[in-house]
Amino acid sequence: MANTKEVELLGFWVSPFVLRVEWALKLKGIAYDYIEEDIFNKSPLLQRLNPVHQKVPVLVHGGRAVSESFLILEYIDETWKHSPLLPRDPYDRAMARFWASVAEGKLLENAWIAMCSEGEEKERATELATEVLAHIEGLIKGKAFFGGEGIGYLDLAIGWVSHWLPVWDELGSMKILDPAKFPATAEWSGRFVEHPLIKENLPPRDKMVVYFRDRRRSWMMASKSHA
Amino acid sequence: MANTKEVELLGFWVSPFVLRVEWALKLKGIAYDYIEEDIFNKSPLLQRLNPVHQKVPVLVHGGRAVSESFLILEYIDETWKHSPLLPRDPYDRAMARFWASVAEGKLLENAWIAMCSEGEEKERATELATEVLAHIEGLIKGKAFFGGEGIGYLDLAIGWVSHWLPVWDELGSMKILDPAKFPATAEWSGRFVEHPLIKENLPPRDKMVVYFRDRRRSWMMASKSHA
Repeated sequence: MANTKEVELLGFWVSPFVLRVEWALKLKGIAYDYIEEDIFNKSPLLQRLNPVHQKVPVLVHGGRAVSESFLILEYIDETWKHSPLLPRDPYDRAMARFWASVAEGKLLENAWIAMCSEGEEKERATELATEVLAHIEGLIKGKAFFGGEGIGYLDLAIGWVSHWLPVWDELGSMKILDPAKFPATAEWSGRFVEHPLIKENLPPRDKMVVYFRDRRRSWMMASKSHA
Repeated sequence: MANTKEVELLGFWVSPFVLRVEWALKLKGIAYDYIEEDIFNKSPLLQRLNPVHQKVPVLVHGGRAVSESFLILEYIDETWKHSPLLPRDPYDRAMARFWASVAEGKLLENAWIAMCSEGEEKERATELATEVLAHIEGLIKGKAFFGGEGIGYLDLAIGWVSHWLPVWDELGSMKILDPAKFPATAEWSGRFVEHPLIKENLPPRDKMVVYFRDRRRSWMMASKSHA
């Protein structure tokens, strides 16, 4: 008997890492079963499928598990070759991967720290995040999407900037995604969340505010107790 | 006039990140000009070519720069398609990338910390590094190379285990790469450094010992002054 659950995704409703995989599956038109994980109480299934990191997302395809969201995007793009996410040209591919990785390591990381800190630490993290956004502004200027006319790998990779970063900016009383400083990124951000496939697949903002307010509080309390 | 310097590589003689790129270029038979960087006094060229990280390796091909060693390996594999480094199957590709990234983030990082620390910190880092090696042991068992019969992406990615880790083990009085615990990895390691292309392109062990002894000392002094 064939495996009817051909594609499954283990996720968590507000994880930007999970959402980028869902967006990729939707863009490619791949049907999948979604399994919500409780990341604060990890299931035996998650621990078995991703023993090294025990993190979502995990994509299960024909019984085999792939984890790490950027690697899942590559896997999806190589398995279902229509509507390619990565550009064709090796140099353009390298650039898409490079900026995805920079945004993950330097922008997301520092935006989170900025939201969850005060004083000098907040200032420094905001500065570092802003430096990356300045690069990103240069990349998107004059283009509809990073992928060109349509959404591509880099759009999915930094899609969180359009819907998560504004929430973090609000909760941390910051303005990292400042439309006055980064008009092209702000415009892309608006275009991205208005794209029909993305719009239908975004966590509700009010629930996000409640969730991240709580996470921010826990994070700040933990930092203080370690200081 | 055509650019006669078609491929250039900015490197540093003892960087395992640079060496994996050199090995890939040699395996593919791609001629290149090597430019040695002083990583303690970065050149304007490096700062211009890799403004975000200012790190080697940087591969320059036809005047365009690609940085980050794993991304350079992908670029090389996509640009010069003969003697592929990555496997063909999307799942096998995802696994090669996954273990390369785990070895980089959890094994290399913790082996370095173990070498440069004492007491509980050293114990914990050794334990974490050993956990990854146990996974790697499972991957290589019964195979000549991670890439199968020949050297592939994952061999290049964790090639440092065969020549750098023994030096770090020695300097830190550790035995992370313990042949009794990890016989298949130890055998692979011997095979890897004996491969003609790799053997000819390894930094001399005695120079490495001097260099890393010095780095270890600086690192430990810096940690103490921050504690």
